[in-house]
Amino acid sequence: MSVPPPDFAASGFPWPEPGTPLADLPTPLPVIDEDRLAANIARAQEYMAAHGLNFRPHIKTHKIAAIARQQIAAGAVGINCQKLTEAEAFAAAGFDDILITYNILGPARLARLVALNAQVAHLAVTADSAMTVAGLAAAFAGAKPLTVLIECDTGGGRCGVQTPQDAFALAQQIHAAPGLTFGGLMTYPAPGAAARVETFLQETMALLAAVGIPCPMRTNGGSPDLWQAHLVPSASEHRAGTYVYNDRSMVRAGACAPGDLAMHVLATVVSRPTPTRAVLDCGSKALTSDLLGFTDYGEIEGLPGARITGLSEEHAVVDLSACTGARPEVGDLVRVVPNHTCVVSNLFDRMVFHKNGVVTRVEPLAARGTVW
Amino acid sequence: MSVPPPDFAASGFPWPEPGTPLADLPTPLPVIDEDRLAANIARAQEYMAAHGLNFRPHIKTHKIAAIARQQIAAGAVGINCQKLTEAEAFAAAGFDDILITYNILGPARLARLVALNAQVAHLAVTADSAMTVAGLAAAFAGAKPLTVLIECDTGGGRCGVQTPQDAFALAQQIHAAPGLTFGGLMTYPAPGAAARVETFLQETMALLAAVGIPCPMRTNGGSPDLWQAHLVPSASEHRAGTYVYNDRSMVRAGACAPGDLAMHVLATVVSRPTPTRAVLDCGSKALTSDLLGFTDYGEIEGLPGARITGLSEEHAVVDLSACTGARPEVGDLVRVVPNHTCVVSNLFDRMVFHKNGVVTRVEPLAARGTVW
Repeated sequence: MSVPPPDFAASGFPWPEPGTPLADLPTPLPVIDEDRLAANIARAQEYMAAHGLNFRPHIKTHKIAAIARQQIAAGAVGINCQKLTEAEAFAAAGFDDILITYNILGPARLARLVALNAQVAHLAVTADSAMTVAGLAAAFAGAKPLTVLIECDTGGGRCGVQTPQDAFALAQQIHAAPGLTFGGLMTYPAPGAAARVETFLQETMALLAAVGIPCPMRTNGGSPDLWQAHLVPSASEHRAGTYVYNDRSMVRAGACAPGDLAMHVLATVVSRPTPTRAVLDCGSKALTSDLLGFTDYGEIEGLPGARITGLSEEHAVVDLSACTGARPEVGDLVRVVPNHTCVVSNLFDRMVFHKNGVVTRVEPLAARGTVW
Repeated sequence: MSVPPPDFAASGFPWPEPGTPLADLPTPLPVIDEDRLAANIARAQEYMAAHGLNFRPHIKTHKIAAIARQQIAAGAVGINCQKLTEAEAFAAAGFDDILITYNILGPARLARLVALNAQVAHLAVTADSAMTVAGLAAAFAGAKPLTVLIECDTGGGRCGVQTPQDAFALAQQIHAAPGLTFGGLMTYPAPGAAARVETFLQETMALLAAVGIPCPMRTNGGSPDLWQAHLVPSASEHRAGTYVYNDRSMVRAGACAPGDLAMHVLATVVSRPTPTRAVLDCGSKALTSDLLGFTDYGEIEGLPGARITGLSEEHAVVDLSACTGARPEVGDLVRVVPNHTCVVSNLFDRMVFHKNGVVTRVEPLAARGTVW
């Protein structure tokens, strides 16, 4: 069925021209500081290079081809995607080393994965069960072989095989499948789990070495522990997404300083119903409800003590009771540091960039608003 | 700057043809049951008609012109929008009675509001401060007059004037502005506040009547209290959004039965890492992190006792410890009842409808992915 894309140009929304001051932009709107973005990209890459680790940025945070090109230009070996539509969009944009850290299941997705693998020079996926591997093996029999890594649960409590023995068994299944190439090990650990990751990798690598199965990639991940990546010497690469923008959770984790926050959500004070209450126009459809362990929904720059205590879809309710500075008036513009940048990106069709408060460019986002 | 829309067709994502069984759809994907949707629309309208209340559905829940047309065909007097881009998109789709329940501020938005008012037969906005009213008055001086209602805080704790006296003072300001027409009173109360709403409306109406200012619209709102709308006899209309799809929070509020849930999020079991853990492919980019007072992120149909204890962007972690039925296997399809449907809609470019599990249509959503 031919469904025309929703023409939001018809809604009259004007994306800004380069040169526009941020103060003239409509709100709520996330904006990216070019200098901080570039510094975040450079700093992470330099750290990885200094420790002999390959770096593979996760594009789920930004979904923007131009940023991924900056990351590759800085020295990244390739990109990490979390779903097939992301990988398809970035392959179409010319990226040729893509790791999809996901179990891909079902005939429709497997057919698309076969087509994608034919198109991309270096494509790899992960698997954590015999069922997933069997599906991949059936789909790729006779096709260009697909590289498959094993996802290992090193305490993150999400996906992944539970023991090195389970990883070894699954590696043998992959190794034996004609259409598959065993690519190595992948983990997305809980923060602070470097020792546990190292042990899991070492034990699995020993089992594989004993039977002569190569394990070229050992890919570790996570932004909060980015600067501890060198504590896992058996890893060959690290993956991270959030580091590129950073956010309130990264400051709390000690993984960045406030001066490294590249994304702010611009918002307007739309109501001051009481002396201690302000209402902003950035609701859950701009900030999302992600708390990540916080008890409020973001931090308002320049309003120390103000707390975003509640969100509805287009409103943020701010408690000013403990606000130590001047309280904002209706019409004032504020900048909110979101708890979690990756989910904010996903709410907008475009991202606006600025340098010293002046718009530099507007980039489209790929693979949002779709499903797998 | 001309920015081409992100061409997600290039990402290879196939929106389904009518006639496709739900079991063949990619996941994660929200789908709408046509029969339940139609029944929800009819039931609410019949209730309002029986109580002599006008009904104004809030389109923020669905953002779909075709559904708003069903609501109007059933007898709704017009639509409710929460932001200017929503109103612009629905005006472009031909809707001619639109209430934007928001303080609209700033020269750029006010200029767009003037243009919209010239285009729409019956447009109204709300205001809760002298600052907002002054902005509207300046923008509409000499233009086609804009209808302005006063937002009243009847305990909801978001926007709104705090007392009938404040409402009266603001009504006088609106009444005195040449470009504005005082349209009445609006409130979005906390659930269970019918008596408080009634008192606020009565007291304000008495103050207005004493000086001869007409107060034609008294518009009350909210889905959880939809069926108590008749307990506010001074209201002339009611607004509600969520009732059209319903969700887990509406079942908990007693405002609908499980058989009235029109939206489900289809998901696939992508991992079964341990005997008590399953992982689905519907993460926070499909369900959102909205809890609405729950401690988990949705309910899985057919898996009593299973709890979605955590979301990351593309994964939902399910605790099966207390699951009393058969535990799902990798590759199984499940249906998740989201906590809050309005925010799920906002994550997808299209909505897929079905009748008895067979796709009937795919509708584009308006005014999502944009800002104000």
